[in-house]
Formats: sequence, structure tokens, C-alpha cells
Amino acid sequence: MKPGDFQIHETVGQARRGTLMTAHGKIETPVFMAVGTRATVKAMNVEELEACGTQVVLGNTYHLHLRPGEKTIRKLGGLHKFMNWHKPILTDSGGFQVFSLANLRHLTEAGVEFRSHLDGAKHFISPEKSMEIQMDLGSDIIMAFDECLKYPAEEKEIRRSMDLTYKWLLRSKAAMTRPGSLLFGIVQGGLSLKHRLESLAQITSVDLPGYALGGFSVGEPIHLMHELLPDVAPKMPAHKPRYLMGVGTPLDLIIAVDAGIDMFDCVMPTRVARNGTIYTWRGKVSIKRAEYKEDDSPLDPECDCYTCRHYSKAYLRHLFLSGEILGSRLNTIHNIHFYMKLMERARHHLAEGTWESFRDDCLSRFVKNRAET
Amino acid sequence: MKPGDFQIHETVGQARRGTLMTAHGKIETPVFMAVGTRATVKAMNVEELEACGTQVVLGNTYHLHLRPGEKTIRKLGGLHKFMNWHKPILTDSGGFQVFSLANLRHLTEAGVEFRSHLDGAKHFISPEKSMEIQMDLGSDIIMAFDECLKYPAEEKEIRRSMDLTYKWLLRSKAAMTRPGSLLFGIVQGGLSLKHRLESLAQITSVDLPGYALGGFSVGEPIHLMHELLPDVAPKMPAHKPRYLMGVGTPLDLIIAVDAGIDMFDCVMPTRVARNGTIYTWRGKVSIKRAEYKEDDSPLDPECDCYTCRHYSKAYLRHLFLSGEILGSRLNTIHNIHFYMKLMERARHHLAEGTWESFRDDCLSRFVKNRAET
Repeated sequence: MKPGDFQIHETVGQARRGTLMTAHGKIETPVFMAVGTRATVKAMNVEELEACGTQVVLGNTYHLHLRPGEKTIRKLGGLHKFMNWHKPILTDSGGFQVFSLANLRHLTEAGVEFRSHLDGAKHFISPEKSMEIQMDLGSDIIMAFDECLKYPAEEKEIRRSMDLTYKWLLRSKAAMTRPGSLLFGIVQGGLSLKHRLESLAQITSVDLPGYALGGFSVGEPIHLMHELLPDVAPKMPAHKPRYLMGVGTPLDLIIAVDAGIDMFDCVMPTRVARNGTIYTWRGKVSIKRAEYKEDDSPLDPECDCYTCRHYSKAYLRHLFLSGEILGSRLNTIHNIHFYMKLMERARHHLAEGTWESFRDDCLSRFVKNRAET
Repeated sequence: MKPGDFQIHETVGQARRGTLMTAHGKIETPVFMAVGTRATVKAMNVEELEACGTQVVLGNTYHLHLRPGEKTIRKLGGLHKFMNWHKPILTDSGGFQVFSLANLRHLTEAGVEFRSHLDGAKHFISPEKSMEIQMDLGSDIIMAFDECLKYPAEEKEIRRSMDLTYKWLLRSKAAMTRPGSLLFGIVQGGLSLKHRLESLAQITSVDLPGYALGGFSVGEPIHLMHELLPDVAPKMPAHKPRYLMGVGTPLDLIIAVDAGIDMFDCVMPTRVARNGTIYTWRGKVSIKRAEYKEDDSPLDPECDCYTCRHYSKAYLRHLFLSGEILGSRLNTIHNIHFYMKLMERARHHLAEGTWESFRDDCLSRFVKNRAET
């Protein structure tokens, strides 16, 4: 296989299991990508990521552009070498962060002018600039520069925005000249099926090695996404990887895999870990619970992660209450391992022809858990 | 060898190389003990500690008594099991923290009443209570409960305090009934040679498996300690381990080993690591330096720690400026490795008969460095 090749091994309903080739090796899908915003997955090192089964790390164009700067990373041999991660890296386009983090944004068709959330310095990102940054980083999968609208948005605004995203995709494609990097286009269109399908038609009219759904997880009621996905995902090109950006909970992942999505990323498992929230096969729990004070059992008896093999709930609770860094480390390892294992099991059950029963078991576990928390 | 046995292999001047046996195995001396205040050496896991050559971890009685409580740790199988560290553990007596951290202290011959710095709750620690806590923790080396005076102190106060420390040692010894644990006495006496030697005579009149010098690193000009050590350390029992508590810099360690000290602990390498200060054989440096922005060399070309084998100064600088947990982790690993390597080299040169030249090389490196920083 060569970079960009995507082989589908099985399809069960809309769900599929595949292999995507990149310049830094294969990615088995469905896959959850760990978010390494500033050239590190928060609290973890690369050996821990590998031990959890991480296949791809996501880097953030916006953050790395501001600090340390893509030219610095390029001089140092690229993002892989800089952060000592030698498996695939996907970078986002910077669009999402420009619209959610930066100050004093000024949007024109040319691009977006904004002030850094770090020091107020003025910056300008265009499709061409986003491609340049991502190519300098040496990313394996490069995302087209898009506009990510907040929810809710008016129809006129949605249409203007998706048309802009389409124009920006054409410019992104023209500017993306790095051999080996794969450019993915991003479908926008808000939360209405009509606009989604229009955007999908626009974006997929451009031949690319992969396509993503952007603009979810932007504050909308989550059932809207769950309802849209089965109508949208199957209409994405069947022989190309499909990436649902910034999503989501274990429940979201199972619903989306069932709708035909192949790739995911989300800060949730790492972020909530640092706040003491733990994912288990029996539900989401807070490590703070008083009942864990003298509990010498692991977080999850079904888990074989480093944390669960070596440490008790009582110890993790103590570390969390004491604000110890090791607490953030151990909780993060567990949550990332949980997400990786969830996708590994999904691949296993797709391969074994037992996807439906696995899916239904997950849905009942995670829906129940959602109701409880 | 059985717990408490201390074998001296070589002596060069006053410096010695030895082996101390504990219930959790041997300790090769001179040794630096990593400080694991709240049942974790900040930012590190136990595998990283072992990879750095850590032989002993120090736990803090005061902190562990307040949270999670020694009874909880005892129920969970003791401190070794709780924190997953199966090599020797030394616990301090709680005295130093009571006098430096706690609020509203009230000292009587019976013990010290104080309010927790965490929640203001009232507590009382006596020699008997300190022994009970340390025995519950299952510590291999238990420190006698002492009063640690601040510097400067008046002669009358020093004498009162050292007499109290002696009485408390007798009570500590009577209360320490745990087989396998080794009780060390603590010499006080402030910064005058006269009182130090008087306290030494008092404390060493009690037969114990080891003796410590307390009351250093309490704010005094450091040259006072450097001047006192050669007059005090050699007068400590020759065939028992000698422990200099809470000390110190690499320079302090070399001076103290040369004076005949065997054991050390200090929060410095871990604390300064989190603030971006790095120990190297060429001096102490701040990882923040602008000149490191594009420096792809390791922290120290002479170092073979995990951090130096995998990461550049540029990456560590980026992590530090970004406030990333991985930065604290990698800096801490490097500094702890540096301290462990310093003691390993000291043992090597004592064994090879090249101690004096190693010592002189270290002194010129570290004194020069001190002048620069």
C-alpha cells in the first residue's frame, strides 16, 4: 500500500473496518486519534501512548503556529521528530481554534485575521497559510482550511459559510504540494440535512484521499448529530476514509461507527481525566468519590491498562485530592486506553461478524451511563 | 545481611562506601533518596524512578497522616503497596513539617499540637504518635521525633530544644516496636560546633541502627554547614549509616560525602525541575533560555537519562513555556537521574581509589556553577 490507499476489509450495514496507509505507516480503522494539541498528548509520553494502542496523534495548527512556530519545528526536523512520535500525525487546519480561541477575528474571503490568545499579537491565516504551516510540520494528514460555524446559525449564514469553505478547499488543494501528505476536505453545513448534503456534494466534487465532517460538537444538542449521521455519513465517498471531527463520547463513537464513520478525535478522554473523571465499561465515574477512600480494587476490573494493573482506586483518589501530577498521568492513561480499546473491540467485532451485538451492548451500557451522570 | 546491617567497603579519608540492609533490600551508600512527600515522587512513576537508579524513596509522615491517613494506608497493605514501590522507604518523623508547615503550633514536652495546613483541623503528634504513624506506614527506616529549630536561634533555645529532642528519642525508641523497621536518631544543636557535639553525644548514647544530622538547610548561610560537617560527621558512630537530612545541592552532597556522610534527601531536584531548572555536569541551566529555541541537542551531552536520549532542549523549552505536564515529567526525570548518577559516580570512585580527583573535579564544576547562577 502507498500513502492514501484505503482498503476496506468488511462492511456490516454502514459500519466498516479498513486500513489507511500514510507516510508513517498504517492506520487500522475505526480509529480514535489522541489529541496532542501542543506537540504532546497532555500528561502522557509516547511510550504510554503506544502501550495504549494509539495509532495516530493529532496536532493543532493554531497552537503550534503561535508557539513554538512551524518554522522552528521544521528546522528541528518536523513534528514527528520534535515530539518523538514516529507513527502517523494528523493536523487540523487551525480554523476551529481561530473561531473558538482567538480574539478580534476579522473574516474575509482572503482568510482570517486574529489576535493570539497568548500575547495579543496579530496573525493572519488563509487556506494557503494553513497548508504552509501543516506542510512545515510534516503532517501525514492535512486538513483543508474551513470555517467552523457556531450553533445555532441562520440559514443565510450557513450557506455563506459552506460556500466559503468550498472556495477555501479549492485553494487548500492548490496550495498543498507536499508529497506523502494526504489532504482531507471538510464538509460543513450546520445541523440541517439539506445543507449538509449540499456541502457534501460541493466538497466531494473535489477528488481527495479523505473527507471529514466538521461543525459537530459545537454546542448543539447531541441528538441532532446522532440523527443526522445515518443520513450523511453513508453518502460520503464509500472508498475513502470518513472522519468525524472533534467527536466524542463512547456513545457518540459507537453510533458514528454504525453510521459508517472511520476516524475520530476528541479532547474529552484526556481533559476529563485531569478532572478525575474515569471511563469504565460499567460507566463513567468520579475518582473523588468518598467510597473509594479504602478501595484497593482497580478503576475497572475489565481493564488491563498500566493504571489498572498497578494502582488502586484509593491511591488514585489520594493523588487526585492531593493535586499530584501522577494522578493526572494515571487517569489519562486509563481513559486513552479505554478509548483505544473501544475502537479495537469495534474492529474485532466488525471482523468477526459480531458488530451488531457488540454495538447494542455498548449502546445499552453507555446510554444507561449517560442517564446516570 | 539482615535489616540494620551496615557494611563499609572502603574508606577514603572520611568518605566511605557501604551497604545498608533493610527489610526491602540493600541500599548502596553514599545514596540520594528521592522525596515522595505524598506517596509519589512528584511527576514520576516508579518505573522511571527505578530507571534513574533510585534505591530509596522518602515519605512524609506529616503529609500522609493528614491525607489519606496512616490507618487507611495500613488497611491498604502499607505504603509500599499503596504507591507500588517495593524497594526501601524511609519516613521522616513529621517534626520538620509540623514546625515549617502547620499553623498554631503549641509545643510542650508531651508533643506538638497544631492545625493542619489543609483544613485547619487540630492534630497532636508526640514521639509515640510519630512512631505509630511510621509503623502503620510500614516504613523500612523510621526517624525519631525531634524538634527542628529555625535559624538563627539563641543558645538557651538551642539547649532546651536539643534536650527535648533527646528525651523524645528515648520515648521514640521505647515506642518503636515494629520488627524490621530501623529507627534512626536525629542530632540537633544548631550551627555551633559545641552544641552539635553535645547533641551528638546525647543521641549516640542511645544504641540505634543509624544516626542523622537534622537542623541543616533551615535558612542558615550554607558555608556554616560546609564548615561544620568535617568536624561533626566523622564523630558520628563509624559503623552506622550517617544521614544528612534535607540536603542539598550537588556541591553540598560532594562536600558531605567527603566529610563521611552516607545518606541524603532533598526536594530540590524535583522542585526546581518543575520550575524549569536543570542540573548538568556543566552547570545549572534554565530551560527557558531563548538560545534553546531551536537547539536540537539534549539537555546534557554527558547524560543518558530517558529525557536526554529522546528529547531536545527546544522541545523541553516548548513544553515548559506551554505549561505542559510532560515538561515537568521530563525535567524531573533528568534531575533525579543526575542526582542518582552523581552518587553512583561517587561510589564508583570510592571503590576505584579515585575519590579525591573526582571530588576535586566536582567541586570545581559546582563551585564555578554556583558563582554563575
